[in-house]
Amino acid sequence: MKTPKIMTLLSDFGTTDPYVGVMKGAIARINPSVTVIDLTHDLPPQNLQAARFCLLSSYAYFPQGTVHVAVVDPGVGSSRRAIALQLPGAFLIGPDNGLFSGILAQEPILAAVELTNPRYWRTPDVSQTFHGRDIFAPAGAHLASGVPMAELGRAIAPETLVQLPLADYRQEPDRIQGTLQYIDRFGNLITNIPGDLVSGKSWFVKLADQKIQGDRTYASSPVGSAIALVGSHGYIEIAVNQGNAQQQLQLDWGATIQVMIAL
Amino acid sequence: MKTPKIMTLLSDFGTTDPYVGVMKGAIARINPSVTVIDLTHDLPPQNLQAARFCLLSSYAYFPQGTVHVAVVDPGVGSSRRAIALQLPGAFLIGPDNGLFSGILAQEPILAAVELTNPRYWRTPDVSQTFHGRDIFAPAGAHLASGVPMAELGRAIAPETLVQLPLADYRQEPDRIQGTLQYIDRFGNLITNIPGDLVSGKSWFVKLADQKIQGDRTYASSPVGSAIALVGSHGYIEIAVNQGNAQQQLQLDWGATIQVMIAL
Amino acid sequence: MKTPKIMTLLSDFGTTDPYVGVMKGAIARINPSVTVIDLTHDLPPQNLQAARFCLLSSYAYFPQGTVHVAVVDPGVGSSRRAIALQLPGAFLIGPDNGLFSGILAQEPILAAVELTNPRYWRTPDVSQTFHGRDIFAPAGAHLASGVPMAELGRAIAPETLVQLPLADYRQEPDRIQGTLQYIDRFGNLITNIPGDLVSGKSWFVKLADQKIQGDRTYASSPVGSAIALVGSHGYIEIAVNQGNAQQQLQLDWGATIQVMIAL
Repeated sequence: MKTPKIMTLLSDFGTTDPYVGVMKGAIARINPSVTVIDLTHDLPPQNLQAARFCLLSSYAYFPQGTVHVAVVDPGVGSSRRAIALQLPGAFLIGPDNGLFSGILAQEPILAAVELTNPRYWRTPDVSQTFHGRDIFAPAGAHLASGVPMAELGRAIAPETLVQLPLADYRQEPDRIQGTLQYIDRFGNLITNIPGDLVSGKSWFVKLADQKIQGDRTYASSPVGSAIALVGSHGYIEIAVNQGNAQQQLQLDWGATIQVMIAL
Repeated sequence: MKTPKIMTLLSDFGTTDPYVGVMKGAIARINPSVTVIDLTHDLPPQNLQAARFCLLSSYAYFPQGTVHVAVVDPGVGSSRRAIALQLPGAFLIGPDNGLFSGILAQEPILAAVELTNPRYWRTPDVSQTFHGRDIFAPAGAHLASGVPMAELGRAIAPETLVQLPLADYRQEPDRIQGTLQYIDRFGNLITNIPGDLVSGKSWFVKLADQKIQGDRTYASSPVGSAIALVGSHGYIEIAVNQGNAQQQLQLDWGATIQVMIAL
Repeated sequence: MKTPKIMTLLSDFGTTDPYVGVMKGAIARINPSVTVIDLTHDLPPQNLQAARFCLLSSYAYFPQGTVHVAVVDPGVGSSRRAIALQLPGAFLIGPDNGLFSGILAQEPILAAVELTNPRYWRTPDVSQTFHGRDIFAPAGAHLASGVPMAELGRAIAPETLVQLPLADYRQEPDRIQGTLQYIDRFGNLITNIPGDLVSGKSWFVKLADQKIQGDRTYASSPVGSAIALVGSHGYIEIAVNQGNAQQQLQLDWGATIQVMIAL
């Protein structure tokens, strides 16, 4: 028996309407043996930064050859390109709007195409508003079924891909300045500062009027008080033990975060 | 290897409680090879119109022979019938309360049965409140596994099926009057007016005090302003570019909508 | 073809973030043929009683040999044990914090191990905050793939498992006093009183100022009025026909409930 191929879906469609189910139907019509895994469909609508981080922090945990289809697509129906990218370990499919910037900062692109071949769409007569169903999910199902990248459309130059700007972190001997790149539903505040920069050191997060000690687990701090730790995604994160750090600390997406390191 | 069979599930059970998971368990006990796809479980509780539209706008995207199980069932435990219907391309299973009216206006019924044969229930001792687990999901799993319709229960006459009333659209040369049949979680307002009635024409939606131009994509109008278009489901829809049309236009389920066509 | 193995997942992670998708990725890397069914991921955060009831009321509906992975884990990163239990019909995996107490009151334990063998973790370098991804889901995938219990870690004595206290019901000839053990998203109030104690009898629930008649189906009472019945899980439950009993009756988790029986 051949190993089932894995696809993931990520969108801001929500699960109240049947849009996600319909994408899965379109996949099953092409190849009912594909296993489809939802990353999430409840991203803040059209929040490309949130989509970027979810993809970045998830893709490495899937089997070799997984096809990730991401549809957060404010420009659907405009002239933005629909693309497929081949990495060493995975395929990425979605609109060319910077969704994949996070992953692409870490992985080389082996091949890149624009999805111009209508033979691999659901129908040549595509909807102007639902490319997830008519272009992205079908292209993904064909890739997962062994169709070669080059069949899906014309090659594009990787350097023409749209980039999503995110402030870089800035490292000095005794401090690192970074940015909040994601806030999860628990209110945990996730920076873009890699945890290995503080590995084995004594460190804390400095906010205007407080100092949040760096530690190892949520349970290390008293219930209700803030703690900084390296999250499961590998970045420095600020949490409140059994509480909501976003609400308690009044910080929002994109906020600047300062980490101090004992020399 | 045999092609996996596909079932879909639609309900108003939500996903907070394990009710949907338990239905999938009941299916897996009968046939663990069936692939189950969720259409949605977050329909407004007992909103049969919402269920009717979700089924209508989804079923055509699934593989031949898919078994659609729909459980929005205010009359569970009463004398309403539990039914299975065979269409040319699919099977429908659920309570006989009009859920399938939308699909049945488009498809002939090849066979119709009441699910009276306890051999294909989960147990002869069925719960009075959870026919999804005890009757509908098991009957669907048996159908997906090749059990013939006639085995599931006694034949019923299609003309005895309960209908769910929905105002028809009314067409004149220069205008079409229709009804809002669905509102999605983005607040997009979906009428029952088929988009092909305005195909290639110049048209707009006339509301009390405004005129909403018919166009092709969400991005065609300025951010925050209303637009009318033919949605991915094929019906005329009113949206607000990066906004919520329901809130902005103060329209609700069942509202009357007037489309004007340039002659 | 071998029968696909079934795993279930239950957590309080929500589905807004990709945590659940990542657990499924970790499972697929070990065995892409496993079918994963979500019980729920929207439990009230860290509500062990809710998790306990969801597992108790679900496990019996799954195929023989299903592996249930449950991750409601306020003590992640502390010294609480990670465990796997073998029952006659299923495997249970999760933190040793009482999650499984409900099931274990009904089923014998055939084997119990602590998940101490890093060979069956995702990586020996486990996150301090996401054992669902790094320990529980991988251990479950290995069990579902035929790895013997004894391989997963050192045997533990069942009597050392952490218990989650829940007030027992108390039965007298004409009354039974019990406790609300779960409230579902419809606001249905689920007691811990087994329905077979009132089977064939005339009974009602006595609240401070009202008497709620025991009956068979939601539809037996007028719309908007309270009814008591034996729910699909087998326990006595208080509901409001097309309404929300929790809001209407102002009762909360753990409340004491009195059932009166006509002699």
